[in-house]
Amino acid sequence: MERSELEFATSEAVRLAIREKRWRGVTKRLALGYHQANVTIVPKDLAFDFMRFCFNNPKPLPLLDICEPGNPSPPRAAPNADLRTDVGGYVILRNGEVVETVSSLENHWRDDHVAFLTGCNLSLDRIMLESRIPLPHLISDKAFPAQFRSSISCVPAGPFHGPLVVSLRPVAEELVVPLVELTSRFPLSHGGPVHIGDPRKIGVDDLQQVHWGRPNEILPGQIPMFWACGITVQAVALAAKIPEIIVHAPGNMFVTDLLVRELSTAPAV
Amino acid sequence: MERSELEFATSEAVRLAIREKRWRGVTKRLALGYHQANVTIVPKDLAFDFMRFCFNNPKPLPLLDICEPGNPSPPRAAPNADLRTDVGGYVILRNGEVVETVSSLENHWRDDHVAFLTGCNLSLDRIMLESRIPLPHLISDKAFPAQFRSSISCVPAGPFHGPLVVSLRPVAEELVVPLVELTSRFPLSHGGPVHIGDPRKIGVDDLQQVHWGRPNEILPGQIPMFWACGITVQAVALAAKIPEIIVHAPGNMFVTDLLVRELSTAPAV
Repeated sequence: MERSELEFATSEAVRLAIREKRWRGVTKRLALGYHQANVTIVPKDLAFDFMRFCFNNPKPLPLLDICEPGNPSPPRAAPNADLRTDVGGYVILRNGEVVETVSSLENHWRDDHVAFLTGCNLSLDRIMLESRIPLPHLISDKAFPAQFRSSISCVPAGPFHGPLVVSLRPVAEELVVPLVELTSRFPLSHGGPVHIGDPRKIGVDDLQQVHWGRPNEILPGQIPMFWACGITVQAVALAAKIPEIIVHAPGNMFVTDLLVRELSTAPAV
Repeated sequence: MERSELEFATSEAVRLAIREKRWRGVTKRLALGYHQANVTIVPKDLAFDFMRFCFNNPKPLPLLDICEPGNPSPPRAAPNADLRTDVGGYVILRNGEVVETVSSLENHWRDDHVAFLTGCNLSLDRIMLESRIPLPHLISDKAFPAQFRSSISCVPAGPFHGPLVVSLRPVAEELVVPLVELTSRFPLSHGGPVHIGDPRKIGVDDLQQVHWGRPNEILPGQIPMFWACGITVQAVALAAKIPEIIVHAPGNMFVTDLLVRELSTAPAV
């Protein structure tokens, strides 16, 4: 199945293609204009602390929806969806280690599981294209996001603590200000960047040593810009040795029914 | 102590005056420009459901801050404050009944108590005055808010369910549109109105039969406008017979260090 077939598809059509394994791969440029979401699933006894952790760290973890305990359907983001089957892949982490990667949670879901959806920068793909300032991953299949553990610490909540993971975008100098202005209007998609310029200022000493994704080239005339990244959840699960946390496979986001143009505000504090 | 002495005081000065009982009474027009907050305290085993209830109902319950379990200081809204002493009065509800009204929680606070702060319309007093479209309570000491249980249901979460409580403001016809525009910009203070015009459309059949506050007069040329109200928590505690929930005494809000002009956005969904 070609990406172009799903670029302008509805969120529901994309979820169905993923559920039926007709679409395999990352969700960039799919269902343009709909919010895509990071998925985090924790046991109920960790749910309040994780929800506060999201509230305390709105840049990496802007809350889009929270499921009722034991219910895999996001009540407002996609009431007809099933988070056990509608994501391309899942990573299961226990006690600070990745223990399994699975393509479905049908045999892993429990009644005490609580699923959270948090915003993702892929939600802005359509806006970036329409604004004619596309990020590298939109214009080149060779451009991959490079993510790094930064030296910035998240604001802890209960057992949740760890480093902020940042996503690097090499940006042409003349696009730096427009991109700050544009992304700042979308706090539900990580908002404005957390750092511009020298990577060492946020503890990223070697751009070739990525922690997730692949290194990407910084061309002459480009400035490194760093945005908060949802992979922060994985870094926190590892750093804090959380007993159990399940996340989507990197780049395999959950596509919601929420329209980006209708939801451009975010948790305020 | 005169209200005028505290109108332009800092949030900390107002909290101290309340803690030392130098100020008794409602907090309208105090520490103009700072966010004032509804206080809700629940046992930890209800905290996740209550936080989801706030997330599900952002108009009556826009989240400003959440305390660590057992800690009475709001980490970001007022880290130096103590919610056991810095509010003028508290109402304790158990199993759907008001059991006690106290002036301090020093003898009631437990390690399993979790305190939440949600936004309040009094946060807009300064903006209303500066915009020269003050609401009645700002220009007349005789004007009291009138609050009603509406026929609108809150979006439930766990055991939390019940009616949306609305606050009535009689507004001169020519100010209806400006007030919708202005209040809509401040979702952390209940945002835009939930209803304009005929009170019966939202189940308010008799404006003299108020459920909280006092009836207020609707003069010729005035339109009744209704905003979501934080007293919704009390109505929900009563309707859902929540085992234990502690709230501030009506009008006796908690004054935070958060500046309204710095926080005008809110939870998006």
